[in-house]
Amino acid sequence: MTMSQFDTETRMTAQGGSVYTGHVHPHWSIGANPNGGYLLSLAVAALRQAVPQHPDPLSITVHYLRPGLPSQDCEVRTQVVRSGRTLSTCRATLVQDGAERLEVLAAMGDLGAGSDARLSIEAPPMPSPAECVPRSGHSQGVHLPLLDRLEILLHPEESDPAGARRAQVTGWIRFKDGREPDTAAALLFTDTFPPSVFGLLGMVGWVPTVELTVHIRRRPSAGWMLGQFRTHDLNDGRMIEDGLLWDAQGHLIAQARQLALVRQPG
Amino acid sequence: MTMSQFDTETRMTAQGGSVYTGHVHPHWSIGANPNGGYLLSLAVAALRQAVPQHPDPLSITVHYLRPGLPSQDCEVRTQVVRSGRTLSTCRATLVQDGAERLEVLAAMGDLGAGSDARLSIEAPPMPSPAECVPRSGHSQGVHLPLLDRLEILLHPEESDPAGARRAQVTGWIRFKDGREPDTAAALLFTDTFPPSVFGLLGMVGWVPTVELTVHIRRRPSAGWMLGQFRTHDLNDGRMIEDGLLWDAQGHLIAQARQLALVRQPG
Repeated sequence: MTMSQFDTETRMTAQGGSVYTGHVHPHWSIGANPNGGYLLSLAVAALRQAVPQHPDPLSITVHYLRPGLPSQDCEVRTQVVRSGRTLSTCRATLVQDGAERLEVLAAMGDLGAGSDARLSIEAPPMPSPAECVPRSGHSQGVHLPLLDRLEILLHPEESDPAGARRAQVTGWIRFKDGREPDTAAALLFTDTFPPSVFGLLGMVGWVPTVELTVHIRRRPSAGWMLGQFRTHDLNDGRMIEDGLLWDAQGHLIAQARQLALVRQPG
Repeated sequence: MTMSQFDTETRMTAQGGSVYTGHVHPHWSIGANPNGGYLLSLAVAALRQAVPQHPDPLSITVHYLRPGLPSQDCEVRTQVVRSGRTLSTCRATLVQDGAERLEVLAAMGDLGAGSDARLSIEAPPMPSPAECVPRSGHSQGVHLPLLDRLEILLHPEESDPAGARRAQVTGWIRFKDGREPDTAAALLFTDTFPPSVFGLLGMVGWVPTVELTVHIRRRPSAGWMLGQFRTHDLNDGRMIEDGLLWDAQGHLIAQARQLALVRQPG
């Protein structure tokens, strides 16, 4: 059995105590920087070993302190702040080259096969994957190695920033190698679409994430996942982007929100 | 000059290093437990001393580990994870009686007089405070000392859980003693309304917050603030509640989201 690219490239090795080491593979980058969702996946891979009884991130917040370093090793220092029957509250710090890159605070739990949705948010109408437009491997002159790992198909009416009129991006996503999604994948997928403000602002220089919080609501079914990301709040160069992910059966899997800076090209 | 109740009752004293001590005053409780927003305010009061150049919580996440203890002292241990020109990333842990109660991760900054809102979320239509209904000092047999400190006036169509049909609560809020709101107050106000699921479920036993994340978008003007809280996502006893706060001039001040457990009475 061959491990998937995602599992291989987020593998963390316990060093004893609460420290785990791994490698930041260059295949998950946006331009020169490792994707934030990928770096978070490394931290979560360590947390899943720290609290194996609670593999699912029910709530996870990450603050991005500095860019990650592709093709270099990393260390994740974990701390179980409190562990109860239904959830474990954990911290994780991802370090490269002696400097802290990510600071994570999470409530890990076990979503099991739960499915009692009393209230939920429905997936929007969406053309089939065959009718959608691949996210380009180049964007504003930036190479996206990430797209060698992920297949991202955008709504045809939103795929061209120049033609869009609002800050919204909707698309299908899956691993290129056929690995099926789980809650770790859902977490990754909340931070791998183009920034939704591209549709409103056109060219933007850079949209660094300050903080991302994701709530995973249930385990996804096999198949494509559908993501929708919107920005309703952009103030003094700081935007709040809301994201939703559904699985192939139309179940809501994740809610995400991030605070990002919008840097217009000078 | 007399200090306000809020400022007096969230006063934290530096003990040297990065530790601050204070007291959990009993006036901010819901039944026997200190309100979560109030406990968070104690942690923020410490952080504001730790990074005085960055007084505003641009993004703050709190995990509630255990209930607080009213009428007892508390200690807040702070750590500045990274401090830059525009923001400081900080941790804080609130401890009482030797046990960690709150774990906080925040990006603190300086909102100044900024006002360049490119996108925002408009306040909903709302009857004037005179037409609204005070949040009762008793709820489901539980005494709310908090309402000796805060004036909360609910939308007349949402004030009676028995008559409501959806998980939404909208209301005006201000300090009873006339203290004007600032970003610390806005943070408090995101966690002091009745749980929005009351309107959908009627009687609920207890809605403990697991995690709350608040983004403060700008400094509020003087006067009443308007809050609206909704639950669109309730799955397997875990709800996501979204909250918005506007100031008296209609500016969006805060976006909040919390993960809470819904415990139906047995």
